[in-house]
Amino acid sequence: MDDERAAVERLERLTGMLRRRGVVLPAFEIHGGAKGLYDFGPVGGRLRAKVESVWRDHWTSQGDVVEISCPTVTPFAVLEASGHVAEFSDFMTVCGACEEASRADTMLEAHHPNPDALSLADLQALLDEASPACPACGEVSWSPVKAENLMFDTVIGAGSSGRAAFLRPETAQGMFTNYPALYRHFRERLPFGAMQLGRGYRNEISPRQGMIRLREFNMAELEYFIDPEVEAAHDLSPWSNINVHLVPAESEPGPSTIPAALEAGTILHPTVAWFMARTYDLMLALGVDADRLRFRQHARDEMAHYAMDCWDVELHGSYGWVECVGIAHRGCYDLDAHEQATGQRLRAWRSFDAPRTVEVDGWTVEGAVAGPAFRALAGKVKVAVEALDASASFPCSLTLEDGNVVEVLPEHVKRLQRTVTEAGEWFVPHVVEPAFGIDRIIWHLIDHAYEEAGEGDEAYVRLRLHRDVAPVDAAVLPLFEKDGMGDRAREVHRRLCSLRGVQAIYDGSGSIGRRYARADEIGTPCCITIDHQTLQDGTMTWRERDTGEQERLSIEAVEARLRA
Amino acid sequence: MDDERAAVERLERLTGMLRRRGVVLPAFEIHGGAKGLYDFGPVGGRLRAKVESVWRDHWTSQGDVVEISCPTVTPFAVLEASGHVAEFSDFMTVCGACEEASRADTMLEAHHPNPDALSLADLQALLDEASPACPACGEVSWSPVKAENLMFDTVIGAGSSGRAAFLRPETAQGMFTNYPALYRHFRERLPFGAMQLGRGYRNEISPRQGMIRLREFNMAELEYFIDPEVEAAHDLSPWSNINVHLVPAESEPGPSTIPAALEAGTILHPTVAWFMARTYDLMLALGVDADRLRFRQHARDEMAHYAMDCWDVELHGSYGWVECVGIAHRGCYDLDAHEQATGQRLRAWRSFDAPRTVEVDGWTVEGAVAGPAFRALAGKVKVAVEALDASASFPCSLTLEDGNVVEVLPEHVKRLQRTVTEAGEWFVPHVVEPAFGIDRIIWHLIDHAYEEAGEGDEAYVRLRLHRDVAPVDAAVLPLFEKDGMGDRAREVHRRLCSLRGVQAIYDGSGSIGRRYARADEIGTPCCITIDHQTLQDGTMTWRERDTGEQERLSIEAVEARLRA
Repeated sequence: MDDERAAVERLERLTGMLRRRGVVLPAFEIHGGAKGLYDFGPVGGRLRAKVESVWRDHWTSQGDVVEISCPTVTPFAVLEASGHVAEFSDFMTVCGACEEASRADTMLEAHHPNPDALSLADLQALLDEASPACPACGEVSWSPVKAENLMFDTVIGAGSSGRAAFLRPETAQGMFTNYPALYRHFRERLPFGAMQLGRGYRNEISPRQGMIRLREFNMAELEYFIDPEVEAAHDLSPWSNINVHLVPAESEPGPSTIPAALEAGTILHPTVAWFMARTYDLMLALGVDADRLRFRQHARDEMAHYAMDCWDVELHGSYGWVECVGIAHRGCYDLDAHEQATGQRLRAWRSFDAPRTVEVDGWTVEGAVAGPAFRALAGKVKVAVEALDASASFPCSLTLEDGNVVEVLPEHVKRLQRTVTEAGEWFVPHVVEPAFGIDRIIWHLIDHAYEEAGEGDEAYVRLRLHRDVAPVDAAVLPLFEKDGMGDRAREVHRRLCSLRGVQAIYDGSGSIGRRYARADEIGTPCCITIDHQTLQDGTMTWRERDTGEQERLSIEAVEARLRA
Repeated sequence: MDDERAAVERLERLTGMLRRRGVVLPAFEIHGGAKGLYDFGPVGGRLRAKVESVWRDHWTSQGDVVEISCPTVTPFAVLEASGHVAEFSDFMTVCGACEEASRADTMLEAHHPNPDALSLADLQALLDEASPACPACGEVSWSPVKAENLMFDTVIGAGSSGRAAFLRPETAQGMFTNYPALYRHFRERLPFGAMQLGRGYRNEISPRQGMIRLREFNMAELEYFIDPEVEAAHDLSPWSNINVHLVPAESEPGPSTIPAALEAGTILHPTVAWFMARTYDLMLALGVDADRLRFRQHARDEMAHYAMDCWDVELHGSYGWVECVGIAHRGCYDLDAHEQATGQRLRAWRSFDAPRTVEVDGWTVEGAVAGPAFRALAGKVKVAVEALDASASFPCSLTLEDGNVVEVLPEHVKRLQRTVTEAGEWFVPHVVEPAFGIDRIIWHLIDHAYEEAGEGDEAYVRLRLHRDVAPVDAAVLPLFEKDGMGDRAREVHRRLCSLRGVQAIYDGSGSIGRRYARADEIGTPCCITIDHQTLQDGTMTWRERDTGEQERLSIEAVEARLRA
C-alpha cells in the first residue's frame, strides 16, 4: 500500500515536472483544455522529433524499406474496405442523469477479469447486474449499451457534393493503397517494406491515463510484404545470445532468445521473429530499460481473425505493463480486402522454377452458333466464356471486357477440357506489420529515465535520457553574466547551435548549482560553464549529467564531442 | 502560343513522371482518388522528410527557436478566438443542375482582374451578369453566393457530451496557446521563437492545380515573439551584397538588397528583413533557383487588418508565380485575441531602466463607513475599489477576487489621487511569422530541377535536386547480376544503407544505360557500378548525375563521400 502510494506520488511529481518544464502538457490549456489531447512543448517537441529520427534511420538502414506520407483525411470507401467502418468501435453507455458517455467495459473492471473481451449482450447483462455509479456524477442510470465507432468523421468538400470521410485510425492503409507504386518501385521483387510516421486518431469515449490513451497520437508503422511460399532469409544469429522476456500465449513465460523461440515454434514465422529482434534493438537504442520490456503473444481469440501471429512489445512503467508496439503477421487480409473493394490487382508475380502444365476444365463457345449470334462481339464473348469455371450454368448474363453485357444461351457454348502452360502466377503478398505508438514509447523513455534523489526541498531530479533523444544537447552557463563571461557564453552558445543537429540552451540566471539542476531535470547530457579561466585560456568546464564529472576542454574539443 | 503549349506538355510529362516513379501521386487512387489529396510515394516520402529536416536544422541553428508539436484536432473555442470561425471562408455557389459547388471568384477570373478581392454583393452582381457555365456540367444555374467556412469540422467525444472542433487551418495557433510555456522556457526573456511542422487543412470548394492547392498540406511555421519597444539587433551585413528581386507594394519592382530595402523604408521592420534574409538562404540551400524567386509585398488592403508588414516569397514555375512562404509582422493581434477570449495573461514583463512614478487618479474606501459595512471583506473591497478608474460611479456591484459580489454605495468611497512607483510593466509581445507551404516548396524544387534533353524516344530526364534533399543518395548497380557481381553489389548496397542517414537503392535489371537513366530521373546524385574489376581489386565506378563523369573509388572512399 505504501509502495502504491509512493508510486502515485512519483507519477504526480513526474507529470508536474513534464508540464512545468514544457515537455508534455495538456493541449489548449489556456482555453480549458481538451481531454485526450496533448502538446509536446518547448522541450518535448525536440524529444519527439529525435525519437522519430532514430526510428526512421533504424528502418531505412535495412535497405529494403521506403518511407511514404499520406493524408490523414481518408474517404469512407477506404476505411469501409479495410473493415474499420464496421469494426473499429467500443461499447458505450450514456448516463441518464448527466449525459456523460462512458465505456461499458472500463466501468466493469472491478466486476470481471477481462470485460473488454465480452460481447455486447454479456456486457449489457453485467452492467445491469453490477449497476456501477457514473464516474462523472455518481448516479446509476444507464442507456442501453451500444457499439460506438471510434473514428473522427468529417466531410470532404462543400454542399451536397461533399463526401463522407474519417481521420485515419492508423497509417497502415496508406501503405496498402500505395501498393501498386511500391511494387513498381521495387522493380516487382519481394520482399520489401514501406513505412510511415504521422498522426492517427481515435475518438476515445472517455480517455484517461495521460499519454497512454490519446485521441490524437503519433504513430509509426511499417508494412513488410512477403511471398508466403518463399522461406524467409533473415540472419538471426546476432540475437542468439540475447535473453529477452517472452510471454507466449500457450506456454510458460520466461527468458528465452528470439532465435530459440522461433526454433521451438513459439514464434510462428521467421519474419515476425526478425521484426521482434530488430525492434528490440531499436527500443534499447532509444533508451528503454531492457528489464522493463517484454514480448507478449496474443492468444488466438485475442488476435484479429485473419492474423497468423501477433506479439506486443510491452513496456513497464507508472501504468503497469503497456502495449507500445504490435508486431503482427496479417496474412493477405489487407491487400485482399482492398482488391475486393476496388477490383484493382494488388498482387505480385511468382515465376515457377519450370513452366507448369495445368488442366483447365471449363467452357468455350460453339463457334457455328455463337459467331452469327454475337457477330463483332464474338471474340470478346469467347474470352469471357473461357474465363468461367466448370460450375457455370446457362443461360447467363456476361459482362464483356468492354462493358457490354450479353445473354449467353446453352446452345452458344460447349464444355472444354484443355491443357495450358503457365510460367508463373499472380498472388496476394502476405504482410508483417510492426506498428509503434510513438507517444507511449516516449512516455516510457521518460519514465525509465526519471530518477529522483533526496526528498522535499533536497529532492534532485535527473532525467537519464539516451543522448540520441535528449531534447537539449548542451547547456551553456556563464559562471556570472558580468566581466564579459555572459558575452563569451552567448558566443559559445551561438557557435554550438550552428553545428548541424545540435541544440544548446543558454542559461544565465541563478546559482550555478540551480542551473545544473535545471539542466539535469530535462535530461541535458552536459553543461558547459564559462568562467574566469575561459577569459584567460579559452577552456571551459564540461560537466557530465550522469556522473557529475567535470573536465576542462577547448571549444574545439567541445564541438567535436557534440558532433560525434 | 507555342511556348504555352510546350509548357503545358512539359507539365504533363513532369506530372506523369512524378506519378510513375512514386514521387507524388493522387491519394487513394485505387479507390477512385479524392481531389486535393496527394501521397508522397516510395520516392517522394524521403524527399519530403529531407526538406523538413533541412528546414528544422536551419531554424534550430538560430539558437533562440524551439520546436513544439500540437494536435491537429482543435476545439471550437480556440479557432473562434483566433478569428478563423468568423473569417476563414471563400465565396461559394452551387450548380442547380449537377449540385457541384464552385468558388464564385475562380469562375469569374475571365471577367474581372482580381475577383477574389470582391465583396459578396459585388461577386453576386458579377456572377449574375457574366453567367459563367458550370465547369462540371456546363449548365448555367447558380444558387445565391454565400461565404463557406473552409475548415473541416468534426466532434471530440461521443454522444451529447461531444464538443465541436475543427482540423487546424494552420499550425500557428499551437504556438500562441503554448505562449506561457514558451515564456517560462526562455526564462522570461524576449525575443524567442517557436516553430512547428505538421499538417494543415483547408476544405477547398473545388481544388485545382495539383500540389499547389491541397485540402491537406504539410506546413511549417515559426512565430517569433519580440518586444516592440526594443530595437531589433539583427546583423544583416552578410546579405548586403546579395541582390534579390523585390516587388514592393508602393514602389517599382526590381533588384535590391534586403539591408538596402530596410534602410529605404520599403521593408518596414528589421525583424521582417531578418526573416526575409534567412528565408532566402534556406530556399537556396534547398535548391530553389534564385532567378525564379521574388519577394512580393502585400498592399495595405491585401493584408489582414492587424498586420504591420507582409512579404510573400513567390517561386516561379509551371503555375506562374506562386506564394510559397509568407513573412508577416502580425503585431500583437494573436496573443491579444487569446488573452481576451480566455482571461489568461499572455504577456511579457518589461523592466524600466529606472523606476517610474505614476500619478493614479481613482478611488479608495472611506474606512470609517466601509469597515463596519463590509467587515471581513473590507480589505478585498478596498483592493477592488482601488482598481477602478476615475470614471466609476456609485452605487455599483463589484466582484471581489474571491468571487463574492458586493454592492458599493457612494458613502463607502472617496476620490484618491496618489503616486505609485512602478519598476516595469506587462505588455503583449509582437509576433513576426514566417509561414512555409512545404508541398508548394517541394513542387518548385522539383520543377526547377527537372531538366529534359532530347525528344520522343530519345528524351532524357535529369532531376538536378540538391544533394541534401535528393530522395535516394546513391544507386548501386551490378554491371551484370552473374559471376558474383550481383552478390557483391548487394553487399555494397547493404553497407551503404547501414550508414546513418544514407539510403541507397539496388537496381540490377536492364542495360546499364537504362539504369543510369532511371536513377537520373529521380535525382539520384551518384551511381555506383560493380563490374569485373571490382571482383579483382575492390574498386567501383562512381558516376556523377550532373556531369556524367566517372572515376574509380574504393568502398571506403565511397562511404566517406556519402557521409560528408
